[in-house]
Amino acid sequence: MRVLITGAAGFLGRKLAAVLLSDGLSGTAVHELILWDQLPIAAPEISDVIIRSVSGDLLDEECQEAAMGDGIDAVFHLAAVVSAQAEADFDLGLRVNIDGTRALLGACRKLGTCPRFVTTSSVAAFGGELPDLVPDTQAPTPRSTYGMTKVVGELMVSDYARKGFVDGRVIRVPTVSVRPGKPNQAASSFASSIIREPLNGEAAVCPVAPDTPIWLTSPRRAVTALVKAAEIDAAALGDDRVITLPGLRTTPEEMTEALARIGGAAAAARVEWTRNEDIEAIVASWPGAFAATRAKALGFGADESMDEIIQAHIEDEL
Amino acid sequence: MRVLITGAAGFLGRKLAAVLLSDGLSGTAVHELILWDQLPIAAPEISDVIIRSVSGDLLDEECQEAAMGDGIDAVFHLAAVVSAQAEADFDLGLRVNIDGTRALLGACRKLGTCPRFVTTSSVAAFGGELPDLVPDTQAPTPRSTYGMTKVVGELMVSDYARKGFVDGRVIRVPTVSVRPGKPNQAASSFASSIIREPLNGEAAVCPVAPDTPIWLTSPRRAVTALVKAAEIDAAALGDDRVITLPGLRTTPEEMTEALARIGGAAAAARVEWTRNEDIEAIVASWPGAFAATRAKALGFGADESMDEIIQAHIEDEL
Repeated sequence: MRVLITGAAGFLGRKLAAVLLSDGLSGTAVHELILWDQLPIAAPEISDVIIRSVSGDLLDEECQEAAMGDGIDAVFHLAAVVSAQAEADFDLGLRVNIDGTRALLGACRKLGTCPRFVTTSSVAAFGGELPDLVPDTQAPTPRSTYGMTKVVGELMVSDYARKGFVDGRVIRVPTVSVRPGKPNQAASSFASSIIREPLNGEAAVCPVAPDTPIWLTSPRRAVTALVKAAEIDAAALGDDRVITLPGLRTTPEEMTEALARIGGAAAAARVEWTRNEDIEAIVASWPGAFAATRAKALGFGADESMDEIIQAHIEDEL
Repeated sequence: MRVLITGAAGFLGRKLAAVLLSDGLSGTAVHELILWDQLPIAAPEISDVIIRSVSGDLLDEECQEAAMGDGIDAVFHLAAVVSAQAEADFDLGLRVNIDGTRALLGACRKLGTCPRFVTTSSVAAFGGELPDLVPDTQAPTPRSTYGMTKVVGELMVSDYARKGFVDGRVIRVPTVSVRPGKPNQAASSFASSIIREPLNGEAAVCPVAPDTPIWLTSPRRAVTALVKAAEIDAAALGDDRVITLPGLRTTPEEMTEALARIGGAAAAARVEWTRNEDIEAIVASWPGAFAATRAKALGFGADESMDEIIQAHIEDEL
């Protein structure tokens, strides 16, 4: 099986690559893995597996040819401009998240083999006045350019799937915490920082109110969901290719309480509570909980507690 | 006031132009009207009003400059590839309905004056399993490429409005009947044909089941709604720029019954009931009725009966 990951240098891409190499996909070994990102990726050498790095723009036809010219069985499209970045650079947000996704869908269509196409959407699909528990049938009301581009991606993937161009699947992923690595330009970056940095003995800023509702998933669950999304029978999805994932409903206050339990009071004390209006405007527009009825029926699960999420981070990263 | 209409050669564009020239917009006379369509339009000569025709592609920057280079106060963007046509030519559907709309939004943004930007979406935003009465909060689930492109347009207009690039408004227009002129490539074209042609002594085919639910508006109501959408106070809309219009819930059977009452049994007998699977697949995916709660609160109205719609058609066109 030949699999392409875009945004492969990101933490989800790297974790996904490791899982695909160890477990395969749909019971079949991955014999070729193509890792596409803006900059070249040092591909690990593994016997019996070809791992290739493709670097450059999603819209670059030479890159598309290098990545997919030999055909592809499954694409995990993770490359995206994140929320605060798209809010600061509208044109870049549209170029990467809409035009890039469309270019990739077009390249898949050109193959004529209807490859599996898995990509992510976000809680940022929603904003404004919403029910406390957002049902699967809730109309997306993005209040950020990132969210808008993600919903456009959902619509395109569903229609390309309906037309038989790709076997598309989109998962709406909760805010991921604890991300390894450094803060990024996602408005939700703090949701990882306020756990990760204190555990490393460093200070972190929480830019939103302590009681802000947050819909969370661990990186482990997010990767499991990506693989599961690729493996689900297309017939179980029908024409609607968008799956809102279950998550853990929490708040920064509850997160730091769990941090105190696991990392000690000193760790929790490293969180500074300094509100930032720009970040807060984006994050507070996101719903705090989703019913995720369809995802649960399809067998997607959520983390049980913040303590479990922090423990998993310590096991995986520290 | 300087106003641009795209798709100005279409029947809605022509009717809208006439209303704008006679009534103005928001209490201000229209002193310049730009009529943009693929082919040149013979502009009527009216004293004190400049009427200009711009012909060519929405993506053509020279056309954009010709249409909007002097600034614009309001844009009515009606140019679109219709439903059956977009289903037959996927790339054309995306090019005109997504790229064209985005190009126009971009040209408005470049002006830096946040012009009013009114465009249309459709019942085709919805498909699949839906409640009998679709609420305003229902998630769009297009089951046609046309519907998908229209929802993408909604999302773009709302976000361009949120960013202050345009003062955007999108109305989801019910199926319009009775359209004057000839059948077009809309899957809903029959909804006009089965009234219009029999009244002209000609035969018409109804390609869907007699009891298919149809959500209808007269051309008069559609034009009134376009003008009203442009005139509503932006503060009343907030960040959500999409308005699902009220309509008349009917069926082809009820429509031909009204036709028999007004045009006589001989007219109704000119309707042939020959089902077409392709048309039916599209039309049957559309919901039969919308709550349209928000639109009603904003003062948008619907036609009272099919009889009234047919009478208005006779008055306006015959």
